[in-house]
Amino acid sequence: MTEALAQARLAEAAGEVPIGAVVVRDGRIVSAAGNRTRTDNDPTAHAEMVAIRAAARALGEERLTGCDLYVTLEPCAMCAGAIAHARIRRLYFAASDPKGGGVEHGPRVFSHPTCHHVPEVYGGIRESEAAALLRAFFAGRR
Amino acid sequence: MTEALAQARLAEAAGEVPIGAVVVRDGRIVSAAGNRTRTDNDPTAHAEMVAIRAAARALGEERLTGCDLYVTLEPCAMCAGAIAHARIRRLYFAASDPKGGGVEHGPRVFSHPTCHHVPEVYGGIRESEAAALLRAFFAGRR
Repeated sequence: MTEALAQARLAEAAGEVPIGAVVVRDGRIVSAAGNRTRTDNDPTAHAEMVAIRAAARALGEERLTGCDLYVTLEPCAMCAGAIAHARIRRLYFAASDPKGGGVEHGPRVFSHPTCHHVPEVYGGIRESEAAALLRAFFAGRR
Repeated sequence: MTEALAQARLAEAAGEVPIGAVVVRDGRIVSAAGNRTRTDNDPTAHAEMVAIRAAARALGEERLTGCDLYVTLEPCAMCAGAIAHARIRRLYFAASDPKGGGVEHGPRVFSHPTCHHVPEVYGGIRESEAAALLRAFFAGRR
């Protein structure tokens, strides 16, 4: 999660919403990314999506079996769906997202029979640091 | 939808699940794509995602305001989330997907307050053609 928080800070420095994500397999980082939606003009370029796509590319595999994802904010519906498609083993997230989250809020993507793979989910890891980053970012934009 | 069905057939010819998607603005096709998950080793490369990313790249805009999406199968949670993030105006889909759909089934992504943009949704357009393509594909793999 330390690297995910570092990626969130890098994203912020690039003018993006400060969210970062890291894919880990066997204790080693496979990919790490921050939000890139503005940089790339890509509405799908959330940190989780960029990290998952980079990990699949790096491993040459469509499914990230045995990989864990660390992300600084509760994933939205899109990212939760991608996590399921990628067969991520464990999801660790920092801050909860009652307004846009899709794991513990709203669509709760992993809790339907239409979800073909459900990762283990661990929330609240270093939540205060991740939440402080986001609060400061949005306060600065007002 | 004719072009989306053509993209689905092209995807099938490339060894992919036959699903196709097209982004249209002002009556003109902005992007068209089929499933590419195997070809690209990318678990996120559903037809809708590839078409949305290509449209955003082509238009140089993160938000596809005023754009409509045609897709041959009901979008999953991931793609529904991307459709919301991209601010797609109208979603037209062909076949319904009770097993993996995220619009009219399972997480019903557009029906939660956490969904910040809800497109108009029109299902069942040329449903039988799209469903026949998928049935033939999965029958052939058994």
